[in-house]
Amino acid sequence: MEKCIQNLRSQSPLIHCLTNYVTANDCANLLLACGASPIMGDAEEEVEEITQLSDGLLLNMGTPKNRTLPVMLKAGKRANELGHPVVFDPVGVGVSAFRRNIANGLMNGVHFQVIRGNLSEIKFLAGLCASFKGVDAGQEERLTSDKIEDLLPFLQSFAENRQAVIVVSGEVDLVCDGGKAYAIRAGHPLMAKVTGTGCMLSALITAYVTANSSHSLLATVAAVCAMGLAGEKAALRMSNQEGSNSFRCYLIDAISQMTPKDFALESETERLLSRIRI
Amino acid sequence: MEKCIQNLRSQSPLIHCLTNYVTANDCANLLLACGASPIMGDAEEEVEEITQLSDGLLLNMGTPKNRTLPVMLKAGKRANELGHPVVFDPVGVGVSAFRRNIANGLMNGVHFQVIRGNLSEIKFLAGLCASFKGVDAGQEERLTSDKIEDLLPFLQSFAENRQAVIVVSGEVDLVCDGGKAYAIRAGHPLMAKVTGTGCMLSALITAYVTANSSHSLLATVAAVCAMGLAGEKAALRMSNQEGSNSFRCYLIDAISQMTPKDFALESETERLLSRIRI
Amino acid sequence: MEKCIQNLRSQSPLIHCLTNYVTANDCANLLLACGASPIMGDAEEEVEEITQLSDGLLLNMGTPKNRTLPVMLKAGKRANELGHPVVFDPVGVGVSAFRRNIANGLMNGVHFQVIRGNLSEIKFLAGLCASFKGVDAGQEERLTSDKIEDLLPFLQSFAENRQAVIVVSGEVDLVCDGGKAYAIRAGHPLMAKVTGTGCMLSALITAYVTANSSHSLLATVAAVCAMGLAGEKAALRMSNQEGSNSFRCYLIDAISQMTPKDFALESETERLLSRIRI
Repeated sequence: MEKCIQNLRSQSPLIHCLTNYVTANDCANLLLACGASPIMGDAEEEVEEITQLSDGLLLNMGTPKNRTLPVMLKAGKRANELGHPVVFDPVGVGVSAFRRNIANGLMNGVHFQVIRGNLSEIKFLAGLCASFKGVDAGQEERLTSDKIEDLLPFLQSFAENRQAVIVVSGEVDLVCDGGKAYAIRAGHPLMAKVTGTGCMLSALITAYVTANSSHSLLATVAAVCAMGLAGEKAALRMSNQEGSNSFRCYLIDAISQMTPKDFALESETERLLSRIRI
Repeated sequence: MEKCIQNLRSQSPLIHCLTNYVTANDCANLLLACGASPIMGDAEEEVEEITQLSDGLLLNMGTPKNRTLPVMLKAGKRANELGHPVVFDPVGVGVSAFRRNIANGLMNGVHFQVIRGNLSEIKFLAGLCASFKGVDAGQEERLTSDKIEDLLPFLQSFAENRQAVIVVSGEVDLVCDGGKAYAIRAGHPLMAKVTGTGCMLSALITAYVTANSSHSLLATVAAVCAMGLAGEKAALRMSNQEGSNSFRCYLIDAISQMTPKDFALESETERLLSRIRI
Repeated sequence: MEKCIQNLRSQSPLIHCLTNYVTANDCANLLLACGASPIMGDAEEEVEEITQLSDGLLLNMGTPKNRTLPVMLKAGKRANELGHPVVFDPVGVGVSAFRRNIANGLMNGVHFQVIRGNLSEIKFLAGLCASFKGVDAGQEERLTSDKIEDLLPFLQSFAENRQAVIVVSGEVDLVCDGGKAYAIRAGHPLMAKVTGTGCMLSALITAYVTANSSHSLLATVAAVCAMGLAGEKAALRMSNQEGSNSFRCYLIDAISQMTPKDFALESETERLLSRIRI
């Protein structure tokens, strides 16, 4: 994991983000903070060229538009051809037939290195029904420790089937591929009070995976740990009067100040990672 | 009013925002801060489905696009059918024929629980001419205490006619329906130095009214008071070097930290509310 | 320069921004912070009316869309007719044929008072090839002091040819017209860790030039100095735990707190301006 952040810092990959207008600014700032560079450009006329000059691609389905599917398909296919990592964030996939159609089109046309969502979104993607409340996981669909054992076979077979790393964000974050799974207990409840923490995590994963493309699973774990640690550091800085917007600022601050050393302490790593299956 | 914020916190309503790309992030963060959840999705293909699974709807007319009117009409009509509160923010209605056309279409096709704007925007909506400067109220059109007496009959007849609560933001904020009116003297001049404080107030009103739908007038007053109090709290935190962006952060912080207790002090409430007509 | 900021504060010009969705919020907040007012509205149906009621126009080419060229042409031509200053920020002009086509169309159809970009963008615009990495200047294309002497004749002939002020942002910022050139050594490396500092500078230049339209060159220099000073002030406020997002907040804070006095100190001005040609 220490090596993952070192590679990110030394390579400073350029990440092409096709993302929503609500959190685009936060994603751009987070990418700069972590050591990557963002490039946004979602016009059908230019999307392939931008994918081509980038190192990795993020497809975030929030606030989809009329041409979102063809634009994302073009970018995703080009990235696949070039061997660039592609990360998919199926924001609110259950909220409309329109988003389901986009998600289906993307799942059929693009290979993703990593797919990240909350439990409802991932279950929906995997073809199961899910109870939705907006773009955040409903209470009953929030990933908690006691659900992991039941869910894991299902998630790993989805991962195996897609040949992708699957990330389910929740009270505990689960990262798995077909063979291994990690449960990461980090972060802070205030993260749910800031819009776009999920979008930012997907952007961070894209940066980590792009800089460590031969180790997608480990790089994804490193990114999820980095976000969790950043949330904890941000919470420690909070004083009495400070609320959710100060926390958001401290969260991005913490990402910008993270060093390989933050991952180097054995004890810290052990605390974060309770490996639940090999 | 104490009850209004309690209901908001306990119900955590999902607010569908059709809003501009400039302040969408701030509105989403403010909604999370106040205890609600935001969902943004403005594609014609999905807008009705999203309205359907939400609890309340905000129509904010900033940065309108080609399809803004039909999209907002679809969402607004569906919300009306479902009995969901709909709040209208006619941002810059006077700046172009295009916006006037959108506003007219919406006023004819949708029933609003609350309409909030600055004095120019509200006068324009009500069919009077107004002198505009951008999307902010011109100096001469800023609502001040001395204008209230003259304006009130006009505003209340507009409210009566629309069966809506009307909010005019300015140096003093006026909230009225056909029967009652409240003048709220709260807030801080720095709020005019932050983009989107009007948009954020409209989002906050939507959250309060959705959680207290049988008391729209009181819920709107509570939201306007909450924003004003937040502005005052934010101003108190400002130290020497801090400027408009720190203030913006503190404003959202204050909303996230507000508790029913903030509304419980009789003296505070009396200071805020000078009821000017019953 | 002292006079430039005084004029900006007293006139409070309304700036029409046709800009990208990633940094629109930051640009709006920066314009309010410096004493101007922003208005965003990029629908083809209303763009000319908004230009007409504004005092100055910013065309920022980030995240271009299908209709970006005709919309910007309409606004730019109307602004030219009205004698309003127009500032052009050719964000990422080299990344796609689509952006090159927009830039060409604008360069042929609109007269700009000021054109601001990084070295790659400006070289591209001027018809030279450039090595690009995303929307930020590649390392080898970053403007440094030792390159100025070589580049100056080229930049000044471009400025002369376009009858415009040219700004090249980099380690040192160069501002020139056909006759004079200034090298401004200010700012802080953390500015590169915040998205949109270039977009914000272009917005700031638009505000300064609009309030001082008969002195475009000097007003541009004042805006570049203001941004640089703000970056230095922001950096001075940074404490141990603070990272890139705190810096971004402090940067806008510093713009909002800047006074004519900040420009009044002879010594400060001399430190900033090493006039390199008259």
